[in-house]
Amino acid sequence: MTADEFREFGHAAVEWVARYWERLPDLPVTATAGPGETAARLPAGPPGTGDRLDGVFTDLDDLVVPGTTHWQHPGHFAYFPANTSGPSVLGDLISAGLGTQGMMWATGPACTEVETVMLDWLADLLDLPAQFRGGKGVIQDSASSATLIAVLAALHRASGGTWRTEGVRPMAVYTSSQGHSSIEKAARVAGLGDRAVRVVEVDPQTLAMRPDKLREAIAKDLADGVTPALVVATVGTTSTTAIDPLPEVGAICRDLGVWLHVDAAFAGAAAVCPELRWIHDGLEFADSYCFDPHKWLLTGFDCDALWVADPAGLTSALSVLPEYLSNAATSSGAVIDYRDWQIPLGRRFRALKLWFVMRWYGVEGLRQHIRDGVALAERFAAAVTADDRFELVAPHPFALVCFRLKDGDDRNETLLRTINATGRCLLTHTKVAGRYVLRLAIGAPATRAGHIDATWALIRATADELTGTRQV
Amino acid sequence: MTADEFREFGHAAVEWVARYWERLPDLPVTATAGPGETAARLPAGPPGTGDRLDGVFTDLDDLVVPGTTHWQHPGHFAYFPANTSGPSVLGDLISAGLGTQGMMWATGPACTEVETVMLDWLADLLDLPAQFRGGKGVIQDSASSATLIAVLAALHRASGGTWRTEGVRPMAVYTSSQGHSSIEKAARVAGLGDRAVRVVEVDPQTLAMRPDKLREAIAKDLADGVTPALVVATVGTTSTTAIDPLPEVGAICRDLGVWLHVDAAFAGAAAVCPELRWIHDGLEFADSYCFDPHKWLLTGFDCDALWVADPAGLTSALSVLPEYLSNAATSSGAVIDYRDWQIPLGRRFRALKLWFVMRWYGVEGLRQHIRDGVALAERFAAAVTADDRFELVAPHPFALVCFRLKDGDDRNETLLRTINATGRCLLTHTKVAGRYVLRLAIGAPATRAGHIDATWALIRATADELTGTRQV
Repeated sequence: MTADEFREFGHAAVEWVARYWERLPDLPVTATAGPGETAARLPAGPPGTGDRLDGVFTDLDDLVVPGTTHWQHPGHFAYFPANTSGPSVLGDLISAGLGTQGMMWATGPACTEVETVMLDWLADLLDLPAQFRGGKGVIQDSASSATLIAVLAALHRASGGTWRTEGVRPMAVYTSSQGHSSIEKAARVAGLGDRAVRVVEVDPQTLAMRPDKLREAIAKDLADGVTPALVVATVGTTSTTAIDPLPEVGAICRDLGVWLHVDAAFAGAAAVCPELRWIHDGLEFADSYCFDPHKWLLTGFDCDALWVADPAGLTSALSVLPEYLSNAATSSGAVIDYRDWQIPLGRRFRALKLWFVMRWYGVEGLRQHIRDGVALAERFAAAVTADDRFELVAPHPFALVCFRLKDGDDRNETLLRTINATGRCLLTHTKVAGRYVLRLAIGAPATRAGHIDATWALIRATADELTGTRQV
Repeated sequence: MTADEFREFGHAAVEWVARYWERLPDLPVTATAGPGETAARLPAGPPGTGDRLDGVFTDLDDLVVPGTTHWQHPGHFAYFPANTSGPSVLGDLISAGLGTQGMMWATGPACTEVETVMLDWLADLLDLPAQFRGGKGVIQDSASSATLIAVLAALHRASGGTWRTEGVRPMAVYTSSQGHSSIEKAARVAGLGDRAVRVVEVDPQTLAMRPDKLREAIAKDLADGVTPALVVATVGTTSTTAIDPLPEVGAICRDLGVWLHVDAAFAGAAAVCPELRWIHDGLEFADSYCFDPHKWLLTGFDCDALWVADPAGLTSALSVLPEYLSNAATSSGAVIDYRDWQIPLGRRFRALKLWFVMRWYGVEGLRQHIRDGVALAERFAAAVTADDRFELVAPHPFALVCFRLKDGDDRNETLLRTINATGRCLLTHTKVAGRYVLRLAIGAPATRAGHIDATWALIRATADELTGTRQV
């Protein structure tokens, strides 16, 4: 494809994306194609001679769009948001065009240094504590990978440096019963097995980790001769956005020399607002911390931001230097080679999208985005509270509201299935204290008060039908 | 950013990329900015109010381009290529615009199904053996991650299914002395430690793994009570593109029940050409196989294609199902949830770029790309052979030529440093049998015969200077 052909198709692709965003509100939020339907519409094999992308935009409309669950739709309230924005897409476009493979400083100096500076900007934006300032940050693909990196660095440290050569010894990892599934997965990948994960009890009201129970669990392991390697505390759990008490958990970790990783995948973005920075009280105890700009900070997937207090400890755990990668810049010790901060070797220029997003919105624009989300959640929660057939089942400090009909699980499940079937909104569920709970997670950039009100009206009308009652 | 603002900036971004490609040949291939220079040119923090990307394209020209080592430059012969193309960039643009997070079928039906079909297309394109046909493929970010996935699945199988719960037992992993560093890294991440990696001797002429030495190493472990978990054989090693003898290695693995992973990260793409498919002889023994369309198949990073013969074994190793991810489609068992085929939870719609690339070029266009690369390598190798001051140090079946001055390592190191300092080409080095060797890896889409000839002329003239001789 020549540069001029790229211009022609590129302008058409930009137009297709812009048009897609414009018609998003009119599309059903959930894919209409069932299992196998998209695959069945594709040819059996690649064309023998190139088709010059003939008809590709029609194919996107006819084949991809009906098979897409639209994460950027104003009615997408499922899971956590994975929002993006124009500046993010443009940053990714430039990154794809440059085609930089920034595995080392030498292979991508700007790719490396813009990333270092953008992570410093983010640390500034969130007012992170001192141990994460000045070149301590790196982009990972996801919070799952960040957790794995933290586990590996913690195992290396807890082993006294023998881990990388000798392999893993049985050690324990601690998280609350509300911790993310990636913690179990990371322990498994690292060779500890699921049984190494200690599930610490939470307070039944706040769903936050109980520090006394954490201390007990660690004491038991120490008594049994098992080394405690790492505690993962969560700021904003996936189920309900509960917040573990970092000051107490952190003090325990400091006293016992256990690595503290803080997973704020969704909620960390809230700290761009000074009035929400209390969520990071106690973060000064942490050895590592991550949040996902790709969830709630208008940056397209993938972009997890991870900071480590001791980068040298991390690179000591992960570095391997074959001759074919040796180079003068690496030998000088004056540069960062991010390949030693992650699992893969290669890496894209993902910092560009962060740069574009922070430039376009500025600090104030990003704060406004978070405040809008929190306000919309409050608006929805107020409506739920005002209807005495419903109840809130957890605090909602961010943009997730967990609620249910004061009724059986089956009724709530039917409610969820019924509203989702309309294609006008998509919510997901969780279980809290064994009960089926609906989750409304706000964050798609197009979501406005009108969408929240319409979704509540739909929920309410569906409840009328299901319960045979009507809230006046 | 509104849709109309996105149109405006999007068209400008497309133009910037097109213009960048046009002026690439005139740029120095290596970054001109030294350590810290790019970072120093960025503001200390994010702007308080958004700057609406004012001046962003000038900043790209003034700050990013001088700090970039241009992987798409026709004179980029370093490492392995990481080539991209117009259709690939467009596929990524659409993917970024859709903002799909396809962790499960339910969250991205088209994202999932297009990926399954594109991996089937690729299997067809490479004529992969039967065990990898029909929904056995998945996109990983890199061959490093593919190796890790293979190690984990192998450990799970070799443990009889206890691995995921009980953790890893000491087991051994085998690869040749020419295997990629990611194998050592994967063993370390998996908790085996570097000492679990058995480095099998190679034939000094072909640099291919010696099956007799592999058999010896496995026998020794079995005698010592150590379980052999996995052999990683390489088709096209990073150092010199050596090819391990898959028929013999595979037969050993089959006889002893050891997982065989075949890493063809760079060279696998060659199999789009029927005349090069001999490189996969013996692949029918493999449990898993990967190659990187993002290296030599005109698809932008990241896009590694991994196939496993037994997906159920893999997902049994890696699956974790918290309540908040449970859904009807998953429960039905009728769909693929790719989150259980990889380390991270989230994933992008990377299959779009594969679809766009295969459509634009077609089978014939992709074959032509590979044949061009092989022909250019032959052209360069012929020039090296004709100059009796130089020697080839390894076979060059693909698009990598390894050569050196018949002289000391210092002289070769000086040669490399001198030619790279011109900014007209970028080669890297390796060591073969302890000797310093230059590597010329062809694959950037803009590279033509003229660039090869100019690079050889530069090398030859530099050799004239350095050696005080002249080849007539």
